[in-house]
Order: sequence, then C-alpha cells, then structure tokens
Amino acid sequence: PVRTGDGLSDSEREDDKEGKTIYMVSDGTGWTAEHSVSAALGQFDHCLVDHGCSVCTHLFSGVDDIERLIEVVRQAAKENALLVYTLADPSMADAARKACQLWGVPCTDVLGPITEAISSHLGVSPSGLPRGAGGRILLSEDYFQRIEAIEFTIKQDDGALPQNLRKADIVLTGVSRTGKTPLSIYLAQKGYKVANVPIVMGVELPKALFEIDPHKVFGLTIDPVVLQTIRKSRAKTLGIAEQDLHNYAQMGYVKKELEHAGKIFAQNPSWPVIEVTSKAIEETAAVILRLYSDRKQKRSLPSISKRY
Amino acid sequence: PVRTGDGLSDSEREDDKEGKTIYMVSDGTGWTAEHSVSAALGQFDHCLVDHGCSVCTHLFSGVDDIERLIEVVRQAAKENALLVYTLADPSMADAARKACQLWGVPCTDVLGPITEAISSHLGVSPSGLPRGAGGRILLSEDYFQRIEAIEFTIKQDDGALPQNLRKADIVLTGVSRTGKTPLSIYLAQKGYKVANVPIVMGVELPKALFEIDPHKVFGLTIDPVVLQTIRKSRAKTLGIAEQDLHNYAQMGYVKKELEHAGKIFAQNPSWPVIEVTSKAIEETAAVILRLYSDRKQKRSLPSISKRY
Ligand SMILES: Nc1ncnc2c1ncn2[C@@H]1O[C@H](COP(=O)(O)O)[C@@H](O)[C@H]1O
Ligand SMILES: Nc1ncnc2c1ncn2[C@@H]1O[C@H](COP(=O)(O)O)[C@@H](O)[C@H]1O
Ligand SMILES: [Mg+2]
Ligand SMILES: [Mg+2]
Repeated sequence: PVRTGDGLSDSEREDDKEGKTIYMVSDGTGWTAEHSVSAALGQFDHCLVDHGCSVCTHLFSGVDDIERLIEVVRQAAKENALLVYTLADPSMADAARKACQLWGVPCTDVLGPITEAISSHLGVSPSGLPRGAGGRILLSEDYFQRIEAIEFTIKQDDGALPQNLRKADIVLTGVSRTGKTPLSIYLAQKGYKVANVPIVMGVELPKALFEIDPHKVFGLTIDPVVLQTIRKSRAKTLGIAEQDLHNYAQMGYVKKELEHAGKIFAQNPSWPVIEVTSKAIEETAAVILRLYSDRKQKRSLPSISKRY
Repeated sequence: PVRTGDGLSDSEREDDKEGKTIYMVSDGTGWTAEHSVSAALGQFDHCLVDHGCSVCTHLFSGVDDIERLIEVVRQAAKENALLVYTLADPSMADAARKACQLWGVPCTDVLGPITEAISSHLGVSPSGLPRGAGGRILLSEDYFQRIEAIEFTIKQDDGALPQNLRKADIVLTGVSRTGKTPLSIYLAQKGYKVANVPIVMGVELPKALFEIDPHKVFGLTIDPVVLQTIRKSRAKTLGIAEQDLHNYAQMGYVKKELEHAGKIFAQNPSWPVIEVTSKAIEETAAVILRLYSDRKQKRSLPSISKRY
C-alpha cells in the first residue's frame, strides 16, 4: 500500500490531517530509520490497505546540527507526529529526546539500543560519530566487489552472453515477467553476480545453462492469473495494443508457457523452484540466499555470514 | 571493512573464536535486522578497521516456528553471540526473550519497540503476523512503478538513447568511474527513473542534456587520486595491461578530464555538483534525493515523503 511521493502538493498536505504522520530524522542517510519504520508499518497492513489508518512519513536526512534537529522536532510537534530518530552523537540523541519530552512528541530511538547492546557485547565504546564524519575512504575490497557485481548483472540481463553464465554466482531462470531482472539487481546490490536466462516457448535455452554447476541455478514460477495481469500491464507500458498482443498475455499461452517451464524444471531436479506469486522482491531474494548458503554450508541452520 | 561471505569455511569458522559473533533472526527476510546492525556497527569503525574488535554476523531468515528459533538461540549461546531479532508474532518474540534469558544470551528486539510506538500513535493494534503471512498479492501501483524504474534505468545506462533523458526523473552526469551506474541502480530501486550521461573528453554531450529541466540534472565529481585508484582497479578487472591503459588512469589525463567536467558544471550552474569521494552509494543517493525534494517542495525543511 505504499505510494512513493516526491514531496506532497498543498492539496495532499491537507489530507495529512486525516491520517497520522511519522517523522524520521537521521544524521546520516535516514535509510535505517526508513527501513525499520516500513517493516513496523507492515504490522498495520490490515488497516493501511483500507485506509483505516493512513500514514504519511517524512524523512529528514543529514540532520547533523542541533538547530535543524530542534526545528524538525518543533515541526513534528505542530503536526502531531511520531518522531523516529537515528543520531550517532549522544548529545544530539539526548537533545532529540528532551525536545520531544518538552513538546509532547512521542519518540523512538532506533540506533541507541542496538548500539548499546553491541557496545557491551564487544566491550568497546561507540565512536558517537555520524556516518561519514570519520572521513573514511571507501575503496575497500567489498566496494569493488559490489560495483563489479552490479555491472556484471546489468550486462548479463536477459540472457545475454550465455558463456558468462559460468562466471555468475547465481543464475535465475523463468518465463517473461517472473521478476528476474529486479531480483537480479537486488542480489547484485548485495554483492552477488547474477545472470538470468528467460524461458520462452520455441526458443532453445543456451547449452551453458545445463553445463554449469546446477547448485547455482534457481527457477522462478508464478501463478498464471497473476502473471497475466503483470503481462497486460507490461504490454500497456510498452504501448502494445490489445489486439497485437498475440500470445504474450493470453491465458492459454501463459499457462502453456508456465507448463513448458515446469517441464524444464522437472528435468533439472537440482534447481530449486521458487514460487514468487505473493512475494516481494526482497523476500524472494532472502529465500534464494538462504538456499544458496544452505548448499554451500550444509549445516543444520543455514545462515548468511559476513565478517566486519 | 565488510567482507561478504557465502557461509564460512571450517578454517574461517576457527577464526570466529577470536572475534565476537552477532546472530540476527527474523521471521521475514532479515534485511531490517541486518540494516540496523550494520548501521550500529558503523559506530565501531575505529576498532573494526584495525581488527581490534572483529565481528562476524550470521543472519537467519524465515525463522517462523518455535523449534528453529530455539535451536538458533541455543547455537547463539554456544558461540557466546549477541542475538538481534525481529519477530512479528508476540509469542515468538517472547520465546526469544525468555530463551535468551535462560541461556544468558544478550539480546535486542529491533521490531518490538518501534511497532509499539507506532501502535500507540495510530491507536491500532499490530497484526502480529509475519511478513507474507497475510497472503497479500503485490500488484500495487508502487510495485509496477519500481519495476518500471529499474528497467528504465538499466536500459538508459551509460548515456544510451539521449532522447529518453526527457523521461527520466533524475539525470546523473560525470566522468567515467564516478559511480553513476551503481548510484542509478540504487535510486531506481527507490522508484526513480534514472538516466546517466558520461562525460568523456573529446566526446560531445547529447544536446538533450541541455534541453531538459536542469533541476533534475546532478553532476558528480571526485578526488583525482581516488579516481585514479578506482580506474586502475577497473582496468585490471577488464584485463587491460598497464602499458595499454593510455590515458584512462594516467594522473595527467584524470585531472584534465575532471577539469573538463568542472567547466561543463560551471556553465550549468543550476546543476548541483556532488563530491562523491568519501561517500558510500547510499549516502550520495540521500544527498541527491534531499536536493531533489528540496527543489520540488521549496520548504524550509526538505524531506522525502511517502504515503502508506
Ligand atoms: N559507517 C557508519 N559509521 C558511523 N555511523 C554510521 C555508519 N552507518 C550508519 N551510521 C549511523 O547509523 C545511523 C543510521 O544511518 P543512516 O541509515 O545513514 O541514517 C546514523 O546515526 C548514522 O550516523
Ligand atoms: N509487509 C509486512 N507485513 C508484516 N510484517 C512485516 C512486513 N515487512 C516486514 N515485516 C516484519 O518486520 C520484521 C522485519 O522484516 P524483515 O526485514 O523481512 O526481516 C519481521 O518480523 C517481519 O515479519
Ligand atoms: Mg536512519
Ligand atoms: Mg529483520
């Protein structure tokens, strides 16, 4: 039920008064606060969907001086907003808490509790420096790996250069509009080189797909009715007229093509097949990475591990 | 200082005993817990960099039954780990807390506090249902917008089809290796259609760049020494030998090309120029979106607003 806005027009701002407002404030990008708020809002889907409790969020990033912080809190007070903050400098976090108390703004500190827990776990004090303040330069191995993964994945999109399937960490395959591209990009951002191979009836699959390590291949499948809806919308975006659609979004064809994919999957039983119908991109990504690390680790509790 | 691992080998697992361990558990994808932990770990950069306090994280996603949850907590106890969890079902969150108490595992609830704060703000009880349990189907307007933005951005990459600059929400320009591609992709995931136009000495820029709304164009610049390092690494990846590098990574050329870009930026004073040298991709993205919404809203406190 999310609608992304680039700021609200005046008429939309009026509507605010009907819904509740959440302010998010960070001395950094604000993405951490946004991510947590959006996960928590998932717990209110039952009333968000029917607008029983419509919510408007405002994200203030780069708030690294006390004056701007106070201005944001004052504005939150005016709009009866909830304030969610991530402020690395303890004096800023303190100021936020106190200003909220003063003006009766309910507030939640997203960074403090977890930083404290980590601090006592490590036996090390937090720096209190906001992101970027350390002046660190980002040419780590990890930085280059991520960039390389993104560039690889973009170039590989839609089955280009089958000889490169060998170089991919993960290979996705499925019929058109099962979400291979956005999923590939999502995984690439996490540092994995992803290639994807479309399954199209009457088009032979690249031989390389059957020659590479089958443990890195994942099949995607989807409910035919949902797929048809997506394809119709796709056709509209592309400006294809209804009568010119031929097979692409016809139910008979959609079903046959999914069956065709199903047969290929059955012939390659070591490819896990993931049903994407009611999954968000990040959910499918989580399932794939869970299976991926499971296959690599062969432990009873597969996990994605990172070293910092 | 992050190294992404696909599970650890046995010899790496040995090293664990030298550093501290953080377990992350979610009934969903685990990305929220991971994002919070990684932001909080930023507060310990001062000792992570020199490995004074090395940390290994393990992410357990899709933990939606009590048996697996208890197994993870038990394992955390064995490894003396800190446990960070996001569990929507209150009885699961309770079980995590109690099991941690029983086995002396320090733990932090990342979802509970913010969900409670939102609950009292909205005056609505949380569903207690993990992500995906609602069986919702994701064909929202927002879903299609995000997919379209990603596909647009991939197709536009690297200055392809200048006539499409008009259709972009955001246009990035800068010399090679200022990070236009990964930044474009990051913004696309947030729902913005991004085009990027490389600045190369001796190559004319597309006319369209100067004809579109200048308020959506952003210049990227970078320190020449850092750029040279990135280009050298790039050249290695591409397998270009040192002597064949010609100009690309030569300091004299790098400086001249940055000056050339600087002149173009000076001639287009309404394009903000962003220094990316010590910024992570998501930091540059935050700066751009802050300026972008500032230009759209013309309010004293620019914010990125969303409606749920
Ligand atoms: N690498 C980092 N170093 C220091 N602090 C960080 C780092 N990453 C995130 N933070 C802090 O964590 C909070 C959330 O970051 P952000 O998601 O950028 O809003 C902010 O208070 C940041 O200052
Ligand atoms: N759309 C959603 N609906 C319900 N719960 C959600 C939603 N998104 C995230 N959550 C919950 O928020 C926590 C973090 O989600 P995740 O980032 O997927 O681990 C988990 O407990 C999820 O169950
Ligand atoms: Mg934040
Ligand atoms: Mg989580």
